[in-house]
Amino acid sequence: MKPVKVGICGLGTVGGGTFNVLERNAAEIARRAGRGIEVAQIAARRANPKCDTGDTPITADIFEVANNPEIDIVVELIGGYTLARELVLKALENGKHVVTANKALIAVHGNEIFAKAREKGVIVAFEASVAGGIPIIKAIREGLAGNQINWLAGIINGTGNFILTEMREKGRTFEDVLQEAQELGYAEADPTFDVEGIDAAHKLTILASIAFGVPLQFDKAYTEGISQLTTADVNYAEALGYRIKHLGVARSTASGIELRVHPTLIPADRLIANVNGVMNAVMVNGDAVGSTLYYGAGAGMEPTASAVVADLVDVARALTTDPNNRVPHLAFQPDSLSAHPILAIESCESAYYLRIQAKDHPGVLAQVATILSERGINIESIMQKEAEVQDGLVPVILVTHRVVEQRINDAIAALEALADVVGSVVRIRVEQLN
Amino acid sequence: MKPVKVGICGLGTVGGGTFNVLERNAAEIARRAGRGIEVAQIAARRANPKCDTGDTPITADIFEVANNPEIDIVVELIGGYTLARELVLKALENGKHVVTANKALIAVHGNEIFAKAREKGVIVAFEASVAGGIPIIKAIREGLAGNQINWLAGIINGTGNFILTEMREKGRTFEDVLQEAQELGYAEADPTFDVEGIDAAHKLTILASIAFGVPLQFDKAYTEGISQLTTADVNYAEALGYRIKHLGVARSTASGIELRVHPTLIPADRLIANVNGVMNAVMVNGDAVGSTLYYGAGAGMEPTASAVVADLVDVARALTTDPNNRVPHLAFQPDSLSAHPILAIESCESAYYLRIQAKDHPGVLAQVATILSERGINIESIMQKEAEVQDGLVPVILVTHRVVEQRINDAIAALEALADVVGSVVRIRVEQLN
Repeated sequence: MKPVKVGICGLGTVGGGTFNVLERNAAEIARRAGRGIEVAQIAARRANPKCDTGDTPITADIFEVANNPEIDIVVELIGGYTLARELVLKALENGKHVVTANKALIAVHGNEIFAKAREKGVIVAFEASVAGGIPIIKAIREGLAGNQINWLAGIINGTGNFILTEMREKGRTFEDVLQEAQELGYAEADPTFDVEGIDAAHKLTILASIAFGVPLQFDKAYTEGISQLTTADVNYAEALGYRIKHLGVARSTASGIELRVHPTLIPADRLIANVNGVMNAVMVNGDAVGSTLYYGAGAGMEPTASAVVADLVDVARALTTDPNNRVPHLAFQPDSLSAHPILAIESCESAYYLRIQAKDHPGVLAQVATILSERGINIESIMQKEAEVQDGLVPVILVTHRVVEQRINDAIAALEALADVVGSVVRIRVEQLN
Repeated sequence: MKPVKVGICGLGTVGGGTFNVLERNAAEIARRAGRGIEVAQIAARRANPKCDTGDTPITADIFEVANNPEIDIVVELIGGYTLARELVLKALENGKHVVTANKALIAVHGNEIFAKAREKGVIVAFEASVAGGIPIIKAIREGLAGNQINWLAGIINGTGNFILTEMREKGRTFEDVLQEAQELGYAEADPTFDVEGIDAAHKLTILASIAFGVPLQFDKAYTEGISQLTTADVNYAEALGYRIKHLGVARSTASGIELRVHPTLIPADRLIANVNGVMNAVMVNGDAVGSTLYYGAGAGMEPTASAVVADLVDVARALTTDPNNRVPHLAFQPDSLSAHPILAIESCESAYYLRIQAKDHPGVLAQVATILSERGINIESIMQKEAEVQDGLVPVILVTHRVVEQRINDAIAALEALADVVGSVVRIRVEQLN
């Protein structure tokens, strides 16, 4: 078979990595795909010093690639929402397949993009958009196709996990580690996307859609970052047998789908609680398979390129298939997507870690326990750190059983209204992830 | 599209699970596949009490299913080599696709079976043959298609991992735990396949072929079981910062491919060292993606069925594809398989844990160190357990750097020839799995 012609738009980290992997492993890839995968054109505003593009034609105009009649597959690696959306829609309009690593684009404009792709009988592949080199989209969409997925939970932002790992292992503060992460190039100058959970919410939105067969609904994802986490809470969690991870959690319940990104206490002996540094991992629980876990590098030049190239091989294989009998973009047939609603965070169910700064009086524990019990909230464990009394205040730390969030909100309001409680109650969600 | 018609041969644990999952998740599966997957016939010698087959036609003759003109896909779940091979070849001869969970069949007769499938333009899918519900074949064959795979290492026998976990956590002996595993139904009455590593070698053979693009060569796999492991070695390993796991390891080197199953010391902080009980996990290291890990239930009624059903969905999608542009059975195009040889164990390279019973004389350590150093073997750590002197013998435990196995064999022979060394030297391989 003749080689597949690819146009790469964007020659930054992932674009350069993709070019390099396609060059270095050209023979290996052709042995697998049964045909070569050749870069016919690159669109880039500047050269990438980590990537020797030789005599591959380069243009500064991404739309030249989308309009190039020689090209079968356009690889969108420019990032962002606006221009990337225009580029992808133009490529699809021209009947080209698209491979992208752009989680924001898919999470926000995916429904529109997939509709256009279907109309034109072409594929948009986006394995690289979630968890870098881990083939998590393929695992859920194809590998677990026999299951009703119950829930998934992932460490899907390496920057955040690096910060939490350093805070736990070295007792450093959030601000201190963030500054180092910026110096190391793990975190952007504006770290909001990473540390406030927006990047993770983009990825979670995609995973939830392919797990549960619902349209992409990024605007309904609940997002809470890690910038408010203190080393005190990291240490108390440890003492209770937990680790704190910034998780994306999606769960299918009878009343709707939970879609939430937040710091989470996980039992320390779970495999996912031991995923450290910039690494990513995603747990997926299905009704037949039980719990599974997928682990690897969630970002970086070549790990992400690994996913882009796997998509290119998949698309090369699908070129000769019936467009109506391919793996659907969102795992479920477009006419079979469900209207099961995304739940507001108040309707989500979780266990909770609460930390209360209380006046060191007898009877405070009884008041706390009464407020929780009146709201039907059971306590799994409670500790009052008498050794840590400061200015007459003692930290009271407790973990509840699972309960709907609205009730915890009520309880927290009642706790904060107590004369013996000072300041805000710290609340972190707890998941067992069995 | 009209439903795909499936015939299930064998209604034991996996057959019953497959029937149940197809029934229970019929709607979910059809929403994904775009068509129903219906069981049109079952071949079984007896009913499965865990599976209500309703009015599905049942025959006692598996070949009736292979010859049934209504059936598109034959699911081989009878196990064993001989009859299973005949059944699969007959089904292929009749132009039917085959899905199988039979690792022994694929590892031993796969080359013949795939050749027949190619001749007839049909697919043999075997995700369920390795690591139960973990989509590891799909991950390597498709998800990592852009990589040159450097190595893979897996805990791919749940029975063996259950035994090792109990030995470590509770200090029990191999024999004691094996007996319990047999009572729990984890281990067969004849446990040879599980504890001597034959089952793991079948699976490793399959994984190595799809990772490196070589024909299946089960007869060249090196296999060493766990029945000789003592709690003493488990404890010494722990003291050195390692855990012992029964690993299948496949590595691509310049001179050939290592293919070996044996007990292995792994640093205790590796994720895979913390995979316990009957769970399975496979690490795969690729040149672009780095190290990845896949974890889940490696056996059992519904986890294995999860993989069988995923294969059925894949085959249903491939029914309308060009047979020359499908995912090749062994990941690489059949005319692109490599003749890179499988290395004899003497030519494999590893680090080694050695335990020597030595007379408690001064100078023994020097003699040991000299023998190793004369053979160019570097020592990473050495400990002499003076507190454990018994009958004038002291255990000397050491871990070497990486070295080719032939040199360790020479060194062990020289050590055992020392007047101060009593009995055999215990040798366990060590892998860092970075």
